[in-house]
Amino acid sequence: MKIPPKMKAAVLMAPNLLEINEVDTPLPGPADVLIRVEACAVCSSDLSLIAKPWVGQPPYGSFIPGHEYSGTVVALGETVDEFKVGDRVAVEAHLGCMRCRNCRLGYYTACLNYGKKGHRANGFTTDGGFAQYVVNHVNTVYPIPDAVDFDEASLITNLGCVLYGFETTGGYVVGDYVVVIGPGPLGLIAVEVAKALCAKRAVLVGTRASRLEVGKDLGADRIIDIHQEDPLRVVLEETRGMGADLVIESSGGVESPQMAIAMAKRMGKILLLGFPEEPVSADFSILGKNNKFIYTVRGEGWANCGRAVSLLASGKVNLRRLITHSFPLEQISEGFETFKGRIGGAIKVVVHPHGG
Amino acid sequence: MKIPPKMKAAVLMAPNLLEINEVDTPLPGPADVLIRVEACAVCSSDLSLIAKPWVGQPPYGSFIPGHEYSGTVVALGETVDEFKVGDRVAVEAHLGCMRCRNCRLGYYTACLNYGKKGHRANGFTTDGGFAQYVVNHVNTVYPIPDAVDFDEASLITNLGCVLYGFETTGGYVVGDYVVVIGPGPLGLIAVEVAKALCAKRAVLVGTRASRLEVGKDLGADRIIDIHQEDPLRVVLEETRGMGADLVIESSGGVESPQMAIAMAKRMGKILLLGFPEEPVSADFSILGKNNKFIYTVRGEGWANCGRAVSLLASGKVNLRRLITHSFPLEQISEGFETFKGRIGGAIKVVVHPHGG
Amino acid sequence: MKIPPKMKAAVLMAPNLLEINEVDTPLPGPADVLIRVEACAVCSSDLSLIAKPWVGQPPYGSFIPGHEYSGTVVALGETVDEFKVGDRVAVEAHLGCMRCRNCRLGYYTACLNYGKKGHRANGFTTDGGFAQYVVNHVNTVYPIPDAVDFDEASLITNLGCVLYGFETTGGYVVGDYVVVIGPGPLGLIAVEVAKALCAKRAVLVGTRASRLEVGKDLGADRIIDIHQEDPLRVVLEETRGMGADLVIESSGGVESPQMAIAMAKRMGKILLLGFPEEPVSADFSILGKNNKFIYTVRGEGWANCGRAVSLLASGKVNLRRLITHSFPLEQISEGFETFKGRIGGAIKVVVHPHGG
Amino acid sequence: MKIPPKMKAAVLMAPNLLEINEVDTPLPGPADVLIRVEACAVCSSDLSLIAKPWVGQPPYGSFIPGHEYSGTVVALGETVDEFKVGDRVAVEAHLGCMRCRNCRLGYYTACLNYGKKGHRANGFTTDGGFAQYVVNHVNTVYPIPDAVDFDEASLITNLGCVLYGFETTGGYVVGDYVVVIGPGPLGLIAVEVAKALCAKRAVLVGTRASRLEVGKDLGADRIIDIHQEDPLRVVLEETRGMGADLVIESSGGVESPQMAIAMAKRMGKILLLGFPEEPVSADFSILGKNNKFIYTVRGEGWANCGRAVSLLASGKVNLRRLITHSFPLEQISEGFETFKGRIGGAIKVVVHPHGG
Repeated sequence: MKIPPKMKAAVLMAPNLLEINEVDTPLPGPADVLIRVEACAVCSSDLSLIAKPWVGQPPYGSFIPGHEYSGTVVALGETVDEFKVGDRVAVEAHLGCMRCRNCRLGYYTACLNYGKKGHRANGFTTDGGFAQYVVNHVNTVYPIPDAVDFDEASLITNLGCVLYGFETTGGYVVGDYVVVIGPGPLGLIAVEVAKALCAKRAVLVGTRASRLEVGKDLGADRIIDIHQEDPLRVVLEETRGMGADLVIESSGGVESPQMAIAMAKRMGKILLLGFPEEPVSADFSILGKNNKFIYTVRGEGWANCGRAVSLLASGKVNLRRLITHSFPLEQISEGFETFKGRIGGAIKVVVHPHGG
Repeated sequence: MKIPPKMKAAVLMAPNLLEINEVDTPLPGPADVLIRVEACAVCSSDLSLIAKPWVGQPPYGSFIPGHEYSGTVVALGETVDEFKVGDRVAVEAHLGCMRCRNCRLGYYTACLNYGKKGHRANGFTTDGGFAQYVVNHVNTVYPIPDAVDFDEASLITNLGCVLYGFETTGGYVVGDYVVVIGPGPLGLIAVEVAKALCAKRAVLVGTRASRLEVGKDLGADRIIDIHQEDPLRVVLEETRGMGADLVIESSGGVESPQMAIAMAKRMGKILLLGFPEEPVSADFSILGKNNKFIYTVRGEGWANCGRAVSLLASGKVNLRRLITHSFPLEQISEGFETFKGRIGGAIKVVVHPHGG
Repeated sequence: MKIPPKMKAAVLMAPNLLEINEVDTPLPGPADVLIRVEACAVCSSDLSLIAKPWVGQPPYGSFIPGHEYSGTVVALGETVDEFKVGDRVAVEAHLGCMRCRNCRLGYYTACLNYGKKGHRANGFTTDGGFAQYVVNHVNTVYPIPDAVDFDEASLITNLGCVLYGFETTGGYVVGDYVVVIGPGPLGLIAVEVAKALCAKRAVLVGTRASRLEVGKDLGADRIIDIHQEDPLRVVLEETRGMGADLVIESSGGVESPQMAIAMAKRMGKILLLGFPEEPVSADFSILGKNNKFIYTVRGEGWANCGRAVSLLASGKVNLRRLITHSFPLEQISEGFETFKGRIGGAIKVVVHPHGG
Repeated sequence: MKIPPKMKAAVLMAPNLLEINEVDTPLPGPADVLIRVEACAVCSSDLSLIAKPWVGQPPYGSFIPGHEYSGTVVALGETVDEFKVGDRVAVEAHLGCMRCRNCRLGYYTACLNYGKKGHRANGFTTDGGFAQYVVNHVNTVYPIPDAVDFDEASLITNLGCVLYGFETTGGYVVGDYVVVIGPGPLGLIAVEVAKALCAKRAVLVGTRASRLEVGKDLGADRIIDIHQEDPLRVVLEETRGMGADLVIESSGGVESPQMAIAMAKRMGKILLLGFPEEPVSADFSILGKNNKFIYTVRGEGWANCGRAVSLLASGKVNLRRLITHSFPLEQISEGFETFKGRIGGAIKVVVHPHGG
């Protein structure tokens, strides 16, 4: 496959300034593949890091964001036999250093050498997918079947992150009562995963009626609009006062952790997918005295992106419904605005570096 | 609801001699319910224990077998508020003593006081469901929704046992490669559960083409007839030589454990659902050196029958397909013969104590 | 053994009013034993419940508190063969209903039928050990060897609770860096357990120099007086900036959870043994983004009191050092005052119902 | 530190022919350290691989065996800041490829790319420690404190392997009844670890009285000479017929797995540390029906060598007692003979490449 020496990419030049520049097409290292990017989705962390650089982020003028992408393998590093040119692939963001204690034990998304010693987080500490080509280490690449299109595949990290969350809490929810707080992309996917894994009931709590309706379309057995109903009362009623087996907090709201703690049953589990910027006030007495547990996830760990591809291909979860808008690379800023302002009911916005 | 003082029941009078007698309708104890039995399925352990008594089995003339049944609650013990008269219910066989070390830790199907100190196994050590009425402790009763009929519900222990097996091995198989050896009832259900829990591929291995076809109908992605193909070769080919993530051995064949050990990947898991009567010869060197693990289940533990009801009600597994024959109580011996001889392609045979 | 029909007991007559009355000696039920109480320790929950009744507590005039006790079996219920008269025993407080979902799965300290359907918590919902005799269900009784004296044995629930906490977090800390916040009885025992289980380093954080010194005597590798040093800085220095593998919060202080969250390493664990009465303010962003987990314990679950007896008998933990004072039953109020006011450096205070 | 360009090493020239040759001192790669070897122990796998090459083993004339060694860091690869020259260190054998599925999930000793793609097993697929210098990747190196001498430190992989086994089975044995079959080095260490982790009772089963006596010295609460007593009978007597919580099979005997299965309690665990070369005959019916589990270990995984160093330094285990003989490098063949023939009661034999 012919690879041009130059490519178009969205380079972060200054706070909130993404410029479409022509830059050198990158070259894969020995254990890397070069991917022709077909779709790269906008994530809320993208909004944050273009506004104010994150730890380990390269300087203005030399950094291409974007960590949720998919594409086609076009070149292989010299040691790579896991892939071949032409493979359609999805990716994950985190490559651990593979030498710190966490990486050695399998927790590579929680690498203790963030940004150092071989660690890479494409779109965070190394160049990402808002470009026509990108380099990925083989550890971060997953083949996708023909039935999965590139737009959907660009959301694999979202699905992988939610699956990692479920695995972290035990991964077995057959017949369980699950509550999801916050109908953002991760919350909506969490509803889908809960049902795919055979939860008895997935209840979605939120404040926006339109998003809650999307949740219903995606399989929520019950939606609760906080403006209309008291979620805690509903959950206790539906569970004979026992509470939920698993509460997934994905809103990032400062009052949501307390709601999650209150809703979980004695010996129940709370999974945090959203992270409030402000300090949280919570009743640790009911948490402790009732033997409830708080789990968290960092990224799409334990190779769950591979599981995510399989789940997506099975048709049991629907990521396409979340993709409301797409833009060519040249209009990336409009894409960011659409996502940020939820213009036209935007949920996920995808950028196409090669047009279309 | 009017409960007659006498009822019809299949009493084991001598080896392989079930007689339909009129006996006293039993009375529920303080924490029991009385169930009007609508359906009771024949299990291979029934064949075994009517031929030769199991440990703890009551003497001939005073024992009603049958442990896979469903029905309607018709009377409540004095402390029971978990159920009400008229509830449609499924059951599980094991009530632990709830005072041995295993019961206290939640492993009540592995009770150390089998047949003693309050332990009951209906259809094994206490009267079972081949009768018009039966007494169950509340711990062993699960409500079923209207959408689940009694015949299907009588197979809940089978589904609960398979789910317990999955939970025991981790319970999280999204994207995994699962092999099931043996297309008996448990094996067929294991294929269904693997797919319901989002395994990437469920491969069914067996010797009988007709049963393998049933497995295909129920969701097996691939069937392997041992007479036609080498299962190990197929599995290694399909997994690039790695082997299966999980191998479930449910055939009880004496050569099957070795096949399971060989098929599991390095760090893979083997789950035993079938138990060969003869000593097994196996290569423990490849088991050990490749860090493979062997898991087992005893009954339908950890309250998985409750999960099973939810899964069945969701429509994601199909137990009805397994029920090939039904008989009124008077023809129970014909039912046993049909099941034993697989007459007419029999898979599961259900007995109806009230006719129908 | 001759059992008198009447006994002396400390009956709660009104808020903070314990009266030594002569009452009927209780009779064991079918699965109970009658214990002659030799020692009963004062716990901070005793202070709380005599001041203001807890949920499920019997009315004034009919309730004997005390849940940390030991003694000798003097009579057996009709089904009991687990013990014999003359056995020296320790106890745990919680008897689950053994029929709710939590009890069935082994989480009997988190019983969903607290105070109902057979659930008992001696000293909380049923009579306890500040009396000459007490009745215990066999599930809550553990034999102690001769080498363990009754005073030490009365603290078994404390050790069982700490062990349950360790087991809940994984139970395997060989070579780990463990921090304990709060040098109360549970915190001091946590230091001992951490070392007994081969933690590399057990660091004790507190505000009172005298208690920290006790911690040092009991095996703490490092003590940190918050008035003198910044605990977070010390922990990061000692761990090359990584943080602790496990942080145990047992102070109940409102600022301690945040300290625990900050101290835990990425992928580290936080165990809550103390429960602040006031709402806690904490940074859930660093909790979540760093994949830290919060575990809790309710009581001395999973039969850990049995493990505790073994550990105590091995001599690897020292509970005697915590027992600073003892009083005969008649002076129980002085005992409570001594414990509450930490008079004379009191850590644990033990009451002897038969004098001595 | 001055490093000579040439060094002495034991090169495998032909079956069972180790020759002391002068070869080039190796150079560390970017993430490696160069270690001056002070002690390298002989393992039974060394006997096997010098007799007949293992998979992935380099050809005769170009391979230095030895995987149990310790020494001093004398040079650093360019990216290494985890160590400094002069550090005293122990090592582990396995460096995973860190890109296969198992390595990514933390199971690097079960790497799926054995001998390929960066995987190294020093002393198996790459040069080992029967030499004056050796190269190790930083992942396989652990600092040791001054209190631990080099001879003891050379046995760290043995202790790490046993610890990995315990961790694999849950890692929490406080108060448990543990049986160890086989008083070889791993079995003796297993007894020590069981006691260090506070097992109530560690019972050692074997055939050689002298080795059993060593086990007693190292902490076994009970030794059983198979020639004198029936081990199963003893275990059942001591556990009131229940069986052992954990049985560790380290003899590699072909009849030992069946003994282990029989001895484990219902819901008990069996850990295989020894691997019979011949097929094993075992009763899978009692295994399955009693819900027993079989665990295995491959190498010293999950970074347990780091934990092992801490445990060794604490003085709670004694590896020195296992080291019965030492030889200079020149007498390595005598060392191998001594170990193989158990000459002079040999348990572990250590080789000193720099004399002494």
